[in-house]
This record gives sequence, structure tokens and C-alpha cells, in this order.
Amino acid sequence: MPFQYLEYYNGTTGLSVGVNKVLFSEQTPFQKVEVYETDTWGNLMTIDGMVMLSEKDEFVYHEMIAHVACFSHPNPKRVLIIGGGDGGTAREVLKHTSVEHVDMVEIDEAVVRASKQFMPGVGDFDNPKLHVLYENGLTFVDHVPLKYDVIIIDGSDPVGPAVDLFKQEFYDKCRDALNDNGVLTGQTESPWVSSYHESIQSVFRAVDNAFEFSRMYLAFIPLYPTGMWSMAFASKGIDPLSDEVLNRVTSGLNQFGDTLKYYNADMHRAAFALPGFVKEIIAK
Amino acid sequence: MPFQYLEYYNGTTGLSVGVNKVLFSEQTPFQKVEVYETDTWGNLMTIDGMVMLSEKDEFVYHEMIAHVACFSHPNPKRVLIIGGGDGGTAREVLKHTSVEHVDMVEIDEAVVRASKQFMPGVGDFDNPKLHVLYENGLTFVDHVPLKYDVIIIDGSDPVGPAVDLFKQEFYDKCRDALNDNGVLTGQTESPWVSSYHESIQSVFRAVDNAFEFSRMYLAFIPLYPTGMWSMAFASKGIDPLSDEVLNRVTSGLNQFGDTLKYYNADMHRAAFALPGFVKEIIAK
Repeated sequence: MPFQYLEYYNGTTGLSVGVNKVLFSEQTPFQKVEVYETDTWGNLMTIDGMVMLSEKDEFVYHEMIAHVACFSHPNPKRVLIIGGGDGGTAREVLKHTSVEHVDMVEIDEAVVRASKQFMPGVGDFDNPKLHVLYENGLTFVDHVPLKYDVIIIDGSDPVGPAVDLFKQEFYDKCRDALNDNGVLTGQTESPWVSSYHESIQSVFRAVDNAFEFSRMYLAFIPLYPTGMWSMAFASKGIDPLSDEVLNRVTSGLNQFGDTLKYYNADMHRAAFALPGFVKEIIAK
Repeated sequence: MPFQYLEYYNGTTGLSVGVNKVLFSEQTPFQKVEVYETDTWGNLMTIDGMVMLSEKDEFVYHEMIAHVACFSHPNPKRVLIIGGGDGGTAREVLKHTSVEHVDMVEIDEAVVRASKQFMPGVGDFDNPKLHVLYENGLTFVDHVPLKYDVIIIDGSDPVGPAVDLFKQEFYDKCRDALNDNGVLTGQTESPWVSSYHESIQSVFRAVDNAFEFSRMYLAFIPLYPTGMWSMAFASKGIDPLSDEVLNRVTSGLNQFGDTLKYYNADMHRAAFALPGFVKEIIAK
């Protein structure tokens, strides 16, 4: 039976999406995972009533969280994804031919199961380089077997199981889990939503403390609250806007053909430009 | 009586905003103009059920449509605004000390009246350099008394009275109404909304035909459909990304103090970066 999905954010402001039917709905030990069939965005996954991705817009988030990190590192071989159960971030990471091993640490196997069944184009789960581990990301980074070149924090919003992914302790452990040239990216909510400001500030204080280099970058994501989404970049020294990285992006993208729909050399650079009102949030 | 305002776009996808009360509601000869008191965005104006601006987010649209044009021109003195009845675009234009005369050609006096009464911080209507004319922009550009340095197309969506602002004839006339160094900017809807693609393509074909130089640029506008909004830049030769313009932005912004919350030198440049899926729309 068709209905209007409604997600409130910023007080009484919300996103409404027409749903044809509910394809998946499961209260897991961690959260409520649902997949809806929509008429405009393909199938759409929510967690605890918040949009995670749709088949039509997921490319933005996944390209921007994966390629900014993987092109900034000179030669990423081992990549760790915390969360990312839908598989889209791993799919983009695996487009980098240097990558040999991806560990995806997802707390909730239901997210992977729902994505495989109802969003089959999102993940690349049969790729032999991808290793899916059902564990808590916070404890996983405490005992990594072998360090990583890139870590990507692809968790959900800072309520429920992802809340620890916005804290200092987690970023300190991530830094320890990275090799010398290590790079980290993560999603950090919308600057327009004032109830998120504390979480955004918490992450940027944490990466600023833990890493030699950190910056915010932005992407247009139509189904996330306000359409403006922020991400954190942190590294042991690599500047994503250095000539070395920008040249690597340009030459590297030649290998990719036309598989990307959002990320390109201009967008890599442009994403790091911040409006004054956004700078003010993280300056606090 | 409180209610949820709901604006559909892209099929059944929509924006919902909590309204405390209706402050203004008038069916004019041209359109339905309403102002709502909201709990999150201050007062919010809609035209024919589409959000035009809120007190809290209007700075993005107005800064981006005004300053990209006014800084690109080396010495803007005479500026024409088509539409823009809320007054926000004129307010930003008038921050440029070179500007001597602004004609604002708004078809519907009710928009100005509603803005003056219920959004008093948006306009700068007492400024003696500002001349408000209640006329149809399309016929006005046909008989301009004196040419302009900058023209800004600040109309509503391509339904109702603004539909002609998306056609070739209008841009041909705008070009004729501009001085030699003339620059034009205008709002051109969201690339994410497929029902707008025809209008977007129509404008970019038109400016490409009429002008020596044209490009799309983007801004994050949280209360417009999908949060990604496109604008057109066109000129008789000026490239908004030339070193000359970028240097002018940097030095010019020193005069502005901290009155801007979105536009800055980085955002000027970054706005012109386009994702592949957006380039494809205007390449057609």
C-alpha cells in the first residue's frame, strides 16, 4: 500500500518520499533497517527512520567518501571501511587498481543482507579483495592485525550504534591503525542542521587532535537533510589539495573511464571550499 | 493553527516545513504569494506553493546570484534585476560601492509588499540607488533607457509568469541591454529534478547562443528542491575564473567585512565545478 515516508530533521523540517511498498523491514539487535520501493529514487534504505541511500543518488556519497581518500594516498593497498554495509563505498574503493585488500567492518549483517537482496547494483560483494566482518568498528580498530593505508568511516547518524564514531577515542585508534602515509575520510552530517553541530564539532576536534592534517569537505546529497553533506578528511601529512594529489587525480581518473557520475578533478578540489557559516561551526 | 507545509518535486518527493501561522496570503493577478511563520527558518515566502526564500537561508541564493556577477564585472555601475521582489538580490548588489543605479523590475508588487512587511531584514528598499519598477521583465528588456553592466535574472520557477525567462528571445534581449563588458547571472533550477531538465537546457542553449561566454555554477540551498541549485553565468567575454576576476574577488571582499555568510573567493571558484551527471544535462 503506497504511503509517504517522512523524515524530520531541523525541528519540523522534513523530507517526504512516496513509497510504493516496503521491501524489507527488520528490527535488528542494533537498529531498524528498512528498504522501500519508491517511484523516483529506485529502492531506498533507511536506518531508524533516516535515509541511508537510494539507488539513484548513492553514487554521490560513495564516490565522494571513497575517491577523495583513495586518490589522496599515493598507493592505497589496504583499506578499512567502518560501517558501509550497503557495499557502495567498497565498490568505489575497489575501482582503484592498487587496492589489494578491503576490510569492511559492519556491525549489522542485516544491512548487508538487505542491500544484496534489494539493491544488487550497489555492492560488489563477490569481489575476492573484499572481506566483510560483522564486528563493532570501535573495538575492531583497537586490535587491527595489519595497518591500513586508508580508513573510511561510513557509519550512520550519531544516534544508535554509530554514536561512538563521533568521539576522540575512536579517531586516536584509527590513527594508530594507519600506515605512515595514512588517510582517513568519514561522513559528518549536515552543517545546516543545528542539532548535529555538536557531533560535527566533536569529530573535527578529534581529527585535529589525532592527525597532522584535517579538513572538512562537502557534497550535494539530495536525500540527506538539507542536501548539503559534510565529510572529514584527515591524514598523517598528505594535503588533498597539493599539486601532487591533484595531478594524481587527473591522471588516475583516466583509468576509470566514465564510471563516475559526481567525482572528478574539479569536484575534488571544489569540495574543500567552505562557506563562512560552515567554517564558523568547526572553528568553535 | 500550526500545519505542515508540503512542496512536492521530482514526482512524490517533497519538502515539509512546520508552519506556526500564515502571515500573508494573496492571490495576485500573477500568482499566489504566501508568507508563513516557521519555527526553524524564520519567515518563509512561497509563490504558487514553491519556496522562494526563508529568512534563515536566503543569504545563500542572494549572495551567489549577486556577487558572482558583480565581482566578475570590472566596475559595475548600472545593474538590472529581473524579478527579485523580495529585495535580497538588490541588497547584495548594493554592497558593491561601484554600483550607482539598480533597476529592479518585478512583475508583482505583492511580492515586494509581503517582503517589506514580513521579512524586513531581507530588502534594502530605502536605498536611494534602488529603483523598483512593476513591469514584465520580458517587455522591459525590449526598451531599456540606458544599457546595464550587470543583469540578474531572479525569477521564480518556469511555471506561471516566469516561464518566458527560460527562453531564447529573452536572453537575446538581455544581451542587447548590456554594455560591452556586460555580465548576466540567473537562477536555473535543480539538476536533480528531471522535470526541470528541459528548462535548464533551454536557458543554457539560449545563453550559449546569445553570449560569447557562458557557464553553469552551483549553490547549496537547503529549502530548494534537492538542496542543489544551478545558476547561469553569461558574459560578453569575461571569464569568472580568470586570474583578473579571482584577484578582484579577493581584494574586493576586504571591503565587505564579515557581512557575507556563504560567498567567498573559494566558493566563487568552487561553484563552477560540475559533477559529470550535471555536465551531461547541459551537454544535450
